[in-house]
Order: sequence, then C-alpha cells, then structure tokens
Amino acid sequence: MHAYRTHTCAALRAADAGRTARLSGWVHSKRDHGGLLFIDLRDHYGLTQIVFPAGSPAFAAADALRLESVITVTGEVVARAPGTINPRLPTGEVELRASALELQSAADVLPMQVAGDEKYPEDIRLRHRFIDLRREKIHRNMVLRAGVIASIRRRMIEAGFIEYQTPILTASSPEGARDFLVPARLHPGKFYALPQAPQQFKQLLMVAGFDRYFQIAPCFRDEASRADRSPGEFYQLDFEMSFVTQEDVFATIEPVIAGVFEEFADGRAVSPPPFVRIPYDTALLEYGSDKPDLRNPLRIRDVTDAFAGSGFGLFARIAAGGGIVRAIPAPGAASQPRSFFDKLNEWAREQGAGGLGYITFDAEGAKGPIARNLEADRAEAIRAACGLAPGDAVFFAAGARDTTPGFAGAVRTKLGQDLGLIEGGAFRFCWITDFPMYELNEETGQIDFSHNPFSMPQGGLEALNTQDPLTIKAFQYDIVCNGIELSSGAIRNHRPDIMLRAFEIAGYKAEDVEARFGGMLNAFRYGAPPHGGSAPGIDRIVMLLADEPNIREVILFPLNQQGEDLLMGAPAPVTAARLKELSIRLDLPPVKKG
Amino acid sequence: MHAYRTHTCAALRAADAGRTARLSGWVHSKRDHGGLLFIDLRDHYGLTQIVFPAGSPAFAAADALRLESVITVTGEVVARAPGTINPRLPTGEVELRASALELQSAADVLPMQVAGDEKYPEDIRLRHRFIDLRREKIHRNMVLRAGVIASIRRRMIEAGFIEYQTPILTASSPEGARDFLVPARLHPGKFYALPQAPQQFKQLLMVAGFDRYFQIAPCFRDEASRADRSPGEFYQLDFEMSFVTQEDVFATIEPVIAGVFEEFADGRAVSPPPFVRIPYDTALLEYGSDKPDLRNPLRIRDVTDAFAGSGFGLFARIAAGGGIVRAIPAPGAASQPRSFFDKLNEWAREQGAGGLGYITFDAEGAKGPIARNLEADRAEAIRAACGLAPGDAVFFAAGARDTTPGFAGAVRTKLGQDLGLIEGGAFRFCWITDFPMYELNEETGQIDFSHNPFSMPQGGLEALNTQDPLTIKAFQYDIVCNGIELSSGAIRNHRPDIMLRAFEIAGYKAEDVEARFGGMLNAFRYGAPPHGGSAPGIDRIVMLLADEPNIREVILFPLNQQGEDLLMGAPAPVTAARLKELSIRLDLPPVKKG
Repeated sequence: MHAYRTHTCAALRAADAGRTARLSGWVHSKRDHGGLLFIDLRDHYGLTQIVFPAGSPAFAAADALRLESVITVTGEVVARAPGTINPRLPTGEVELRASALELQSAADVLPMQVAGDEKYPEDIRLRHRFIDLRREKIHRNMVLRAGVIASIRRRMIEAGFIEYQTPILTASSPEGARDFLVPARLHPGKFYALPQAPQQFKQLLMVAGFDRYFQIAPCFRDEASRADRSPGEFYQLDFEMSFVTQEDVFATIEPVIAGVFEEFADGRAVSPPPFVRIPYDTALLEYGSDKPDLRNPLRIRDVTDAFAGSGFGLFARIAAGGGIVRAIPAPGAASQPRSFFDKLNEWAREQGAGGLGYITFDAEGAKGPIARNLEADRAEAIRAACGLAPGDAVFFAAGARDTTPGFAGAVRTKLGQDLGLIEGGAFRFCWITDFPMYELNEETGQIDFSHNPFSMPQGGLEALNTQDPLTIKAFQYDIVCNGIELSSGAIRNHRPDIMLRAFEIAGYKAEDVEARFGGMLNAFRYGAPPHGGSAPGIDRIVMLLADEPNIREVILFPLNQQGEDLLMGAPAPVTAARLKELSIRLDLPPVKKG
Repeated sequence: MHAYRTHTCAALRAADAGRTARLSGWVHSKRDHGGLLFIDLRDHYGLTQIVFPAGSPAFAAADALRLESVITVTGEVVARAPGTINPRLPTGEVELRASALELQSAADVLPMQVAGDEKYPEDIRLRHRFIDLRREKIHRNMVLRAGVIASIRRRMIEAGFIEYQTPILTASSPEGARDFLVPARLHPGKFYALPQAPQQFKQLLMVAGFDRYFQIAPCFRDEASRADRSPGEFYQLDFEMSFVTQEDVFATIEPVIAGVFEEFADGRAVSPPPFVRIPYDTALLEYGSDKPDLRNPLRIRDVTDAFAGSGFGLFARIAAGGGIVRAIPAPGAASQPRSFFDKLNEWAREQGAGGLGYITFDAEGAKGPIARNLEADRAEAIRAACGLAPGDAVFFAAGARDTTPGFAGAVRTKLGQDLGLIEGGAFRFCWITDFPMYELNEETGQIDFSHNPFSMPQGGLEALNTQDPLTIKAFQYDIVCNGIELSSGAIRNHRPDIMLRAFEIAGYKAEDVEARFGGMLNAFRYGAPPHGGSAPGIDRIVMLLADEPNIREVILFPLNQQGEDLLMGAPAPVTAARLKELSIRLDLPPVKKG
C-alpha cells in the first residue's frame, strides 16, 4: 500500500465499500458523537468522513489532534446508513472506518480558521496566506484562474498562435506608467526596467516574421493600487498577428474569449461571436461611456434639437449656447412615486449636476415640470426618439458638450440599477472601434494624440495629408465586458513615413520622434508586415468569472494595497554591502519632525 | 479577396493550379532569368516562388525591390514544368504568376542577410535581432522552444498538475546566488527581489493544500554568464507534489520528460521510462561524475585491491597510503598504435595527472609497462573486474580519494570520444539518487550540509539521532541527460523538529535557524504535507533538442554575455529625478586613472 494514500479525499464511493483504503489530508473538522469520533479529512480534491470508534487504537491519537494537522488514515471503506448519507459531498455515501492513524504534521493553534465562513481582516489573511488559501472559496478561485489560463492557452494554440517568452529584464518603455527599475550590478549607474507590457517585443516579433504571437505575459507597473489592479505585477493575454485587418483580429480572438467564458460561465449567458461593434462616437452618445455595460438595455438619445428654440428655457439656452441635451429613457417609470424622481434629482446634485429633469408619459401625452413648458410636438418627438410609450418616463442630461455625455451615462447606469433592468447572470461583450486619432487640447489649442500614437490612422498617409486631423479615426479598439474594459488594441502603424507624419501633426519634430522611438522606427525600416493585436487582462477576466470585485481574491500571493508582501516580508532593507555592489546608496527623504 | 493573403507562403500545391491567390511576405531572394523575374516570397510558414513576366505591370516594381521588403502579390497559381519542380519545398510544384504587387514595407540596405548561411558576429545579430530571427535555423529554434514548452504544459496538465503563477516581485531568498533587487518607491530604503526560483512559494502551495503544482517559471539570478546559462533570466519547469515518495516523483515526471523528448527527437533515441537510478556513490565510482553521460558505454571499476601490495610499486604505494586506483576499460584498444597511448599520457599530464598507465590484453595475457611488474593473477583480476577480452586495454587513474574519481571520469569521457564509443543521436536519462546529507569540511573539521539543507534525510529524525552524519543520505536527486544536469530535486523536510535537528548537526543554533528560515518553519507549524518536486531547466532541454551549445540560440531576445540588451538598449542610465523618486542615488566606483 502506498505510504500516504490509495485515494484522494474526493475519490471513495459506495462501490468501494469493503475495500481497505488509505487517505492523507488536513483535519478539516472534528465531531465527537458519543463514543464515535468523526473527522472530515480534506485535501485539494475534496472531503471524506473518517470514523474512529471509541476504544480503537487510533481514537486517542485522533482525539488529541488539532484542526489542520496533516494525517494519514488507513481503514475500511464503509457504506453509510441511509439516514446519514451526505448528498452534498461526492464521497457522502461512505466513510472510512480508521484502523490506523499516522500524524504527518501537527498544527499549532491557528491564527485563522479554515472551515466555516468567518471573515478575517486582509492583513491576517495575507500574512498567513498558506492557511487562507486552504479556505474553500479562495482555493476554488485559484483553481478557476489556472483553468481559465490553461483554457486560453489551449484555444490560442488551436487558433494557430505560438507562445513566446519576451524578456523581463529589459529597457524602460514609453508606455506612460512608471517602470520598476533594477540596478545592473555589472554596469554601474545603469538600470534594467521591468516591462509594463511586451508591446515593443511583440511588434518586433512580427517584424521578425513570427506571424501569430501570444503570451500569458507578466507585466509590471509601479503605480498606486486600485480595486481592479494589483500594485506591481499583473498578467495579460498578450497577442499580435501579421497581415491582418481589424476585423481579422476580432474574428480570431472572439471565439477564444467567448469560448473561455462559456467554459467557465456555470450557467451564465455569454455573448456569442461576433460581438457587437460600437464606434467610439456612438458609444459616447448612446451609452455615455466608451466602456458600455450592455446588460443595461437603456440607450441614450440626443434631443438637443427638440429643445433648441423650445419653450423650456433652461435647455433652450443650453442648446443655443452650443451645449447638448441627452435623453435617458426610463421604461415603466411614470408610475413611480414622486419620491423616486426626487431621490434621483438629489443623486444628480451629488454628482455635481444642477438636477435631473424628466418627462413622464401617460395616455394623454407628456407630463411633469418640463412638459408644462415644452411644446407638445417637441415632447412627442422626444417620445418617438426614445421609443417610449404611455407609462414610461425620460430623464435629461443637459450641459456642455464634453461633460454631458458622461453624466448621461451615469444616469443610464443609475436608472438601469434602480429600475432593476440590468440583465443578471450574463457576460455581454462589445468592441468599441473608431477611436479618434487626435483631440484638441483645450488649454493649448494644439492637436494632441487622443490615445495611442502608434496606431494606424484610418485612411493612412492620405488621410493625414488631406483630412482635418480631428476627423481622423484610428484603427484602435477596446474590448469591453459588462462595462469593464478588458483591453485596448490596435492595428499598428508599421510605416515610418506615416508615423513621422502622424507625429508631425501632433507637433513633434522628426528628430525628436527618432530620438524617442528610434528603436521601433528603425526596425520598421527593414521590412515590417502590417500587424495588430491586443492584450486582454487575465486578472480582470478571472475577476469577472469568479464574480470577485477585489483583485487580491484571484491572485495567489498578492501584494497588499501598500505594495507589501506580508508573508515573505517584501520589500525589505538590504545591507550596505549589497547596495555598494550595485553602485547605489540610499537617499532617504528627510524624517518629518513631530 | 482578403487585403493581404488568401494563403500563407507554405500553402499552395499543384491542386491549386489555376486559382487566383494572394500572398504576403518578405522578399527572401530575387533572380532575374532573362526576362522573367523570380522572387522567393517568405513568411513564417514557408516559401513560395513568385514569377513576374517581363513587361507585366508589376515587373518594374518587383525589379526595384530590396531583399526583405514586405510585399503583397496577387496572381494565378501555375503548375511548374516537370524539370523546374523544387522537391525541397512543399510549394515546389507551383509558382504564383504575379499580376499585381503592393509594397507594404520597403527595406533599407540590410546590416545582415537573411537568406544563406553567412556567419555574423553575435553583437551584430543581437543588435538586429528582428532580422536575425528571420534566419531559418534560429527561427526554427524559437518555434521548437515554443513547441517544447507547450508540450510540457499539455503533459503536466494531463498528469493532474495545475499551473499557478507565483510572484515575481518578492523577497530575497536564501538560494545562494545573487538576487536582482528592485527599489520600492513607496517604501524608501526597501527593496523587492526577483525570485531565483519559486522554491518557497511552491512549498507554501503544498502547505496551502494545492497538491500538484507546476509552472513554466521565470527565474532570475544576478550571476556571471555561462555557455549554458543566460545572465539574468531563465525558465524552469518548476513542479511540486504532496503526499509522495521519491519514486512517485520519478514515476510522474519521467513520462512527461520522455514524452517531450520523443515528440521532438526527430529520429533520435530516447531512454524509455523508468530511467536508470544511480546512487550518488555508484555514479562517482562507475562514471567518475554525478552527471554521467550514459551514451558512453564505459564503466569505471575500483581496482585498488588488485594493486595493494602488488609488484607495481607506484600504485601499491598509493593503495598503502589510503589512495585509490580506478580502472577505465578501453575495449578494442590493444591494437592501437603506441602513439595512441602516448597521446593519452600527454593529455593526462595536461590535466595535472602524473600520466596515464595502462595494460593491454592479448591471447597470452596482460602486456605493457605496468603488466611487466604486476603479478599475473592480479592482472587477471583486473581483466575480469572490467569484463575485458584479448584485444582490449584498460587505463588507470590512481591517487587521492577525493580527486581520483573525477579524473577517472575525465579519462572515461576521453576514451569514449577517442574510441568513437559515444552513442550518436540519443538522449540517455538517469536519476542520481541518495546524495549524502552531510560532508566533512576538511579545513574546519566540521560537518557541513553537502547540498540542500531543506531535503528530508533518509531515516528521518531517527537517522539524525543515531547514525554517523556522514553516512546519512538525503532524499535528494538529480535528473541527468547526456551528461547534463537538468535539475536537482528533493523530497522536502516538512517537519520543523527534523529540520532543527538537521541544522543542529551542521552547527546551527535553533535561534539562528528560526531567524534565517523562520518563514518556512512557521508555515510548517500549521499542518504541512510530505512533499517533493524538482525543476528541470527549460533552456537546457531546448538546447539538447536543438543541439545548440549556446543558450542564446534558444532565447528570442537574450542579454549578451555582458548582460546587455543591445537591441533595446538595456541597462541604461536613468534621470536623477527617477532615482530621487526611488530614494536612491548613484554611488559609482572611482574612475581608474589611465
């Protein structure tokens, strides 16, 4: 018989009754039932009930065990009496009647319990992560994460991608966030940087002819912690493809993403490919966001024209002054009590808006404070534009062109939630496309890049040379699920001539561009294929599937919000000799006097 | 038709003749054959011949192209005339008769050629790695590496392992080599370390109950470059299992390793599991190394007794003085000319030995200078011990107990090579087992750990309490292929009581052990399973399969031997402001005056 186990703690079934079995695991719980001692023995795979009859040689040893001790138990598999079968456990039809017990590891008094649902402060959990990770939900999250990543890999490989490892000790990159730096011992005064993303390497791989690259890539940003981003490191499904259009990228990655979500959806609905494509301008108009949550059925409409020159003076003046009015439908809301509208008005003021005007519709037409001053045909135009019927209502966001769409989006979200319209148990995907290449910097009056200067402008060199820059769109796209951006991506600008012209429009001299981005430009001068890709965030995908808003619930050994590893004690001071070796010394900020 | 390609450059076959096809790729080569211009168009997948007839609209544009420019070509697939079929290309039965050509990216004059076998200095290659990686052999190496890693992952998952990501920004570990350090911006004066291996995390995962962990793990060591180790980062198949014996570890990983090697062996033989297990002491005796190359059939024998008190005074005196004599058989070598023996003698002197004595055997018995002074029955005992026959020879390594086994190993290797005995085209695996737990430090006279202090001693606490420490073996093992160590591994010591006793024997006080290794000891106090594992080096596996002695030939973007990334320009200076943010400043060594 094997020294430790013949079966895992999830393996025994009624058909095994009569066999001798050996199990090893952790003492999950212990119950003394009048002369019989029951232990639920736990391992990675499951639980099995062990019984120690009073007077049996192992009884005393078992009785003395602390919870979470590791033991090996040998005995006979016994079918449970019908009334004692546990239908919630796969092993619930049997128990192991212990004849021998070997203690592998005795547990001290525990700083936290494993069984049960007790909540512990995060610092206790992280400091004793090796105990915390035994708890059912987080253990399951980690296995889910591993399953998601394995599924992604399998699907990417099936789609013809090859996984390559790009360097982790590399050069500082122009990604925007802060790099982590690593002193180079052999090169005094010089530093490596950890990659914020393998962006340049994956583009170089395309230039090197590798065609379809992917990597479950560790990325590093020295930035403040957020709920959905760990300080320090995170993982993305980094991928890039050559000789592709934007639609090729979508068509290739959609089945991977949809497939992974379906595999782990556990009954929740998943958007089937092809995912909805929503141009950036449309997203801002209809959803008030470039990260629309499609589980919310409400669609915003522009009703500026309906109010322009109307009898409702406040909105008429806004329209006359170049502002806009957006209508957010509220189906069925006409019958809500006055307090519903008052509360929303109060909420709007808390958001910094003047208030939240509305119209309700009944069989006779438009009602409410705004309707009283608005011409009936204009109210009717709003009703028709929003597809409303008697019993519905509509709210308005009115104001400046730059801030009003976003506020309308907030109203849409609020109404969707308050009216209970958000689709439950669903993953709804869309692509946001046609991001503007440039935007006007209101302060300087200059043309700036809107997003990524390295995306290919739609229309190429000709568009740059002939179009108003503010009308030029980029082949740039985001993938969004349930209002959460999983990733930005783009068809890249692989042409030095187009890149230099694109930068020129944003006010950069050729020599400055060469100085800052010469590495990539230079690579593109030796034969570069058209290429594009994206990099959906792995942690966010797992958070969605695990329904966890806290990223530290889907990472094995996360840094805490202060960027500390409480278990291993990082970061930590190092000796002066080590610093000397690295040709650096500390330059501590002055201690503040009390 | 797709904007870039209907087929890859490896796809077209005779059956496609008559179709219109579009291909994109790099201009691999160009030949002008009297009015016809031929271009071999290359992509990741292969080559296709393109023909531009003189006078065709695309001819002039094609004629002007520099090699490595990226083009898209549209035309008719044409079957080649029988005499012009290229059997070495999968697409060799057809060519594409171009009717249109679009230039995607014009190449400048190249710093190195892609087609052909020209050798370039490594710095040229690394500086232009995006061109270098287009070359056939290294491109193939990278695809091989990706295939090996994907195969390992698939096999590990099939074997019930789950891949988990352990932290990269973590604490300094007691692995022996230097860590890379990362200043923690938010914690002035403190540093993260990059992991030399996820050793502690994988053990913590076992303590957390995850049972079977693996990871294709990036590891980081700030140590000097070696041919088989990149400076900076490398990858290992890190794995760990709970509730296992040493034999379980072997039985689990052998099919993975053998399977991967078989998958990519390309006709080369692979040891079938179970791999030979060779105790450390036997390895040193029979192979003169703990990394034996089993492709060499020679086995060393100890013949000290045969020489003790013999007529061959030199070896008799060595034996009498506590030294040893090892015999290295040389089958068939008796007929070698005198120069063969003389050259070996010279080689031995270059290795620092006094020379290399030998005996040859013919039908009448032993011959040669040693045999002349050695009693016939003793020579016969040596012949029998080595399994030699007339026509064979045997060489001798004689001297001190500590250095002679290794020299005998060198002789074994040399003879295997010179006599052409090394098995070609084969991967021969073995496990080296039963490493000694302790060794005597000759200088201090104290007992030191031989290898890993964290391995479980064979016999456990009882052995530590009752045996001579120098006789205690550890459950520690290496896996070796063709004389190359792929990995060390061990059944770990998961018991604080046994660990403290093991350290006590090596002269460590309990409080020092707690201070240095308290993190792991503490984790083991809350229920730790017996566990073990190993971590075969990925780069070494790929080097073996690719038959590349230089590790930089199996890494996409390696640092050079000075630890520099010549392409991205790393390491690099950073601004004073960045250093200030990190609370460090430079402390450069004084400049040497000329």
